[in-house]
Amino acid sequence: MKRFAVIGCGFWSQYQIAAWKEVGGVELVAVYNRTKSRAQAIADRFGIPKVYDTVEELLDNEKLDFVDIITDVDTHEKFTLLAAGKGVPVICQKPMAPSLEAAERMVSGCKKAGVPFYIHENWRWQLPIRALKQKLDEGIIGKPFRARITYSNSFPVFDNQPFLAELEQFILTDIGVHVLDVARFLFGEAETLYCQIAKVHKNIKGEDVATLSMKMKSGMHLTVELSYASKVEHDRFPETFIHVEGEQGSIELAPDYWLRTTTREATVAKRINIPYYPWVDSRYEVVHTSIVEANRNLLAALNNEGPAETTGKDNLKTLKLVFAAYESAKRNAVVEIK
Amino acid sequence: MKRFAVIGCGFWSQYQIAAWKEVGGVELVAVYNRTKSRAQAIADRFGIPKVYDTVEELLDNEKLDFVDIITDVDTHEKFTLLAAGKGVPVICQKPMAPSLEAAERMVSGCKKAGVPFYIHENWRWQLPIRALKQKLDEGIIGKPFRARITYSNSFPVFDNQPFLAELEQFILTDIGVHVLDVARFLFGEAETLYCQIAKVHKNIKGEDVATLSMKMKSGMHLTVELSYASKVEHDRFPETFIHVEGEQGSIELAPDYWLRTTTREATVAKRINIPYYPWVDSRYEVVHTSIVEANRNLLAALNNEGPAETTGKDNLKTLKLVFAAYESAKRNAVVEIK
Repeated sequence: MKRFAVIGCGFWSQYQIAAWKEVGGVELVAVYNRTKSRAQAIADRFGIPKVYDTVEELLDNEKLDFVDIITDVDTHEKFTLLAAGKGVPVICQKPMAPSLEAAERMVSGCKKAGVPFYIHENWRWQLPIRALKQKLDEGIIGKPFRARITYSNSFPVFDNQPFLAELEQFILTDIGVHVLDVARFLFGEAETLYCQIAKVHKNIKGEDVATLSMKMKSGMHLTVELSYASKVEHDRFPETFIHVEGEQGSIELAPDYWLRTTTREATVAKRINIPYYPWVDSRYEVVHTSIVEANRNLLAALNNEGPAETTGKDNLKTLKLVFAAYESAKRNAVVEIK
Repeated sequence: MKRFAVIGCGFWSQYQIAAWKEVGGVELVAVYNRTKSRAQAIADRFGIPKVYDTVEELLDNEKLDFVDIITDVDTHEKFTLLAAGKGVPVICQKPMAPSLEAAERMVSGCKKAGVPFYIHENWRWQLPIRALKQKLDEGIIGKPFRARITYSNSFPVFDNQPFLAELEQFILTDIGVHVLDVARFLFGEAETLYCQIAKVHKNIKGEDVATLSMKMKSGMHLTVELSYASKVEHDRFPETFIHVEGEQGSIELAPDYWLRTTTREATVAKRINIPYYPWVDSRYEVVHTSIVEANRNLLAALNNEGPAETTGKDNLKTLKLVFAAYESAKRNAVVEIK
């Protein structure tokens, strides 16, 4: 049984904690929040013994096998390095850091301290995306030569989370970091990246539309379309649609989790069922469910039962794509990924 | 009644001539072909009085209001300038020329001679594409901020036209010139263009896949996907699929000519019916039908009843995109359109 603490009791923490309970094999012994009353509310709801309003105190008092950091991105570096300094393995929410430099400090800090450092990147753990990956790996469509990943809807994100309208950089850091991680998961690393961004909502600071054209190391072309400004027919937050063209056929991840595989013989369509957990918000179903899968992978790694997919080191590569996208858009030029 | 001659009696000429008969108001008085027997066969089939095996002789002997040049691209410049030299207006098949320089010589040659010069660019005259343009113009979806044009199928072009496998430059000059003309027709001029190309069929010389990412002068992002190597579910040569995201909604030109317009209220779907002409090859239905519309537009211009859309001067802008695409792919860089 791994003993752990949750650092940060905001909106997302309730799903993270509920997902840990689904996974099992862990014991949540303490929570921290800047505003202690909020930590207390979470502790009461989930039966957590101890509550802290400083991370230092929590780390000094508790014997932990890992911490799960679910605070705002600005505090990730500080809390990660504090835990690492105490020899405690770290799981940190995405996006890892507000800059590549901070992310690199976090990765090297944990490495120096000799503690495992994982990013809670759950998007790639969505079951329809895993099912698509499995089809790719089966080789039915042969070598992919082009793909398109689309995340475009008109979900009122700014109504629910007004602070998003204040971010200088919005959709690439918010959803882009997820989708670009999926891109790497499915298709490997990028050689070059070109990105255009746009602001369609009038009263926001950052971009709410981004269009990327990547050349992958495999040689394939990858288009990524992101938008929170699209009143489309299949307006299905938070679904990701994917279309892959291969030498022998194609695969589509279509609305409502229909996976459609086309070969010379036929199109075979299969709906990927999402298991039901009573704690998920139905509007976020596929995403909340993916937290269970992400946590399971990270716990297995902590138990030395297998490698973690979304290590800090791996996630640095995803972040590099995000920051390369901003650089490309600013210069309207193709950027090399190093 | 306008008197005209057809120069070149290959595969495409039969559809071009049949389409002129649908339009009416023209009299086909003579045909030329390098191999005279082929010209004679076309003359017999369509009841054309005179047959020539040199263009010079044809031009010297016939009193013409225009010529319709339907030869291979390599001879377009020569025949265009011959006709222009005789003061005869020219309609020329796409692609206008094998190089931008040749195209420029054709445009300036006709200008100097004071004869109208039109390109037979029929793709933009497909009725589903016209219907989409009308929806855009009605303003229902507001200002477009992004669009994607997809022409991807696995039609066995190399089986039907083996010479296509020998071209050093294939899909961008073959279909790209059509699709990029549609892009200009729908969304105006491009500011910059980025293109990746690939060769998926093993035994061909040129590219059979191209992926373009354009920044339009309007500010919108435009992705263009071309492929003759895609075994996709909706494998519908020669259909062009289009998706436009606007500030107030979106429009999709979907398989089988379904035009779907989405606003806050609803998605309205309407199938665009293609009129039947007995001479069309059903495999090319929407394309053959568009020849009638293209010819009608050009004849109206020759009759001073309205402007031609696809003048040589206008088509130069389309060709610039094609050659910019090759340059971009070669350099893996964003190219400015001047």
